[in-house]
Amino acid sequence: MSLIDDLKWRYATKKMNGTKVPQEKVDYILEAARLAPSSSGLQPYKIIVISDKALLEKIKDIAWNQHQVIDCSHLLVFAAWDSYSNERISEVFNYTMDQRELPHSTMDDYKANILSLYEPLGAQWQAHHASKQSYIAFAMAIAAAAEQKVDATPMEGFLNDKLDELLQLEGTGYKSTLMLPLGYRENENDWLVNMKKVRTPKEDFITEVSLEDLRSTEA
Amino acid sequence: MSLIDDLKWRYATKKMNGTKVPQEKVDYILEAARLAPSSSGLQPYKIIVISDKALLEKIKDIAWNQHQVIDCSHLLVFAAWDSYSNERISEVFNYTMDQRELPHSTMDDYKANILSLYEPLGAQWQAHHASKQSYIAFAMAIAAAAEQKVDATPMEGFLNDKLDELLQLEGTGYKSTLMLPLGYRENENDWLVNMKKVRTPKEDFITEVSLEDLRSTEA
Repeated sequence: MSLIDDLKWRYATKKMNGTKVPQEKVDYILEAARLAPSSSGLQPYKIIVISDKALLEKIKDIAWNQHQVIDCSHLLVFAAWDSYSNERISEVFNYTMDQRELPHSTMDDYKANILSLYEPLGAQWQAHHASKQSYIAFAMAIAAAAEQKVDATPMEGFLNDKLDELLQLEGTGYKSTLMLPLGYRENENDWLVNMKKVRTPKEDFITEVSLEDLRSTEA
Repeated sequence: MSLIDDLKWRYATKKMNGTKVPQEKVDYILEAARLAPSSSGLQPYKIIVISDKALLEKIKDIAWNQHQVIDCSHLLVFAAWDSYSNERISEVFNYTMDQRELPHSTMDDYKANILSLYEPLGAQWQAHHASKQSYIAFAMAIAAAAEQKVDATPMEGFLNDKLDELLQLEGTGYKSTLMLPLGYRENENDWLVNMKKVRTPKEDFITEVSLEDLRSTEA
């Protein structure tokens, strides 16, 4: 199976059957997310794994009652930095330099550049930027789940502030961005499973352009 | 090769050798991006493909002079909606319903819900939200490239407004969000190729939590 086959196989599962996903598959999916690239390699996010039914019940209540939250095997909650700071960036870069056996100062100029770019944009922009990075890791988890024939439902639809409160993220510098329930589809009760997968047609999705094309439009 | 192997193989290629990527591989990578999931299936983004050297030279100048932009085979520019509107959402939903042979009205309630959620959040939030969706497609393109043993360099570092102007995106309702040069690594001139890949350690990246854990922290 190729990635394309996996992407065709997957869909936003609407009904899961409660079957447990083996731990090695969950670990595989988490590892794909961990290996995802991110801006400047900062990985400004982490993943909270929840399989406790009592906690999942509480999350369902603040996630528009979406039943996959309790019918799944494991729920992955992605949480991203609420802002960038010298301390946070230094911690990541120092660790990277230690692993590469290079002096911490190697990254000083680069770090100063990032900070001078990000600081004027403010905390809200920074939170959006960190959140965007978490979408890359989220996508890798989705692809990994499909490769492992584990169903998953990408979810943005929940009350972020209430989830942050429930998971005690307040004051940690992280905000929830996304959720990904992992489990197995219940074919007979899933209205979406047999629907045609629809995507923007290629000719609308992809444009090829050259400088000459642009000049001829201008003229 | 598995996705994990592919993610270990890939890295943000710093020097490319100018070799052409076969068209079928470029098409494969674009198809993975097209199949990516997005919020409500709206796919509020598209991809502009550029291989014209004259245009790539101009883009390099507004992308901090990053040489991969001209040493690549193809540059993918991701561009996302600058806002949501009834018209845009209706167009996608109507097309989906046509493909599924269902009446357009099937989506009326859902569409009204989305609009009532997104409209009060304003155009800037909407642009961020659409941009985030493009990061999922971007990640699928990165994973697909790695699977095809095509190198790629995820890039946010360019002057978005100037790129929008150059690509004549102004007035189209799209804004550039990301770039992905595709090509092949030039080992001898790439400082990063032999560096250890460093990621947040598992124990910091992943937390497991239950309701009981949270209650004991509260107490």
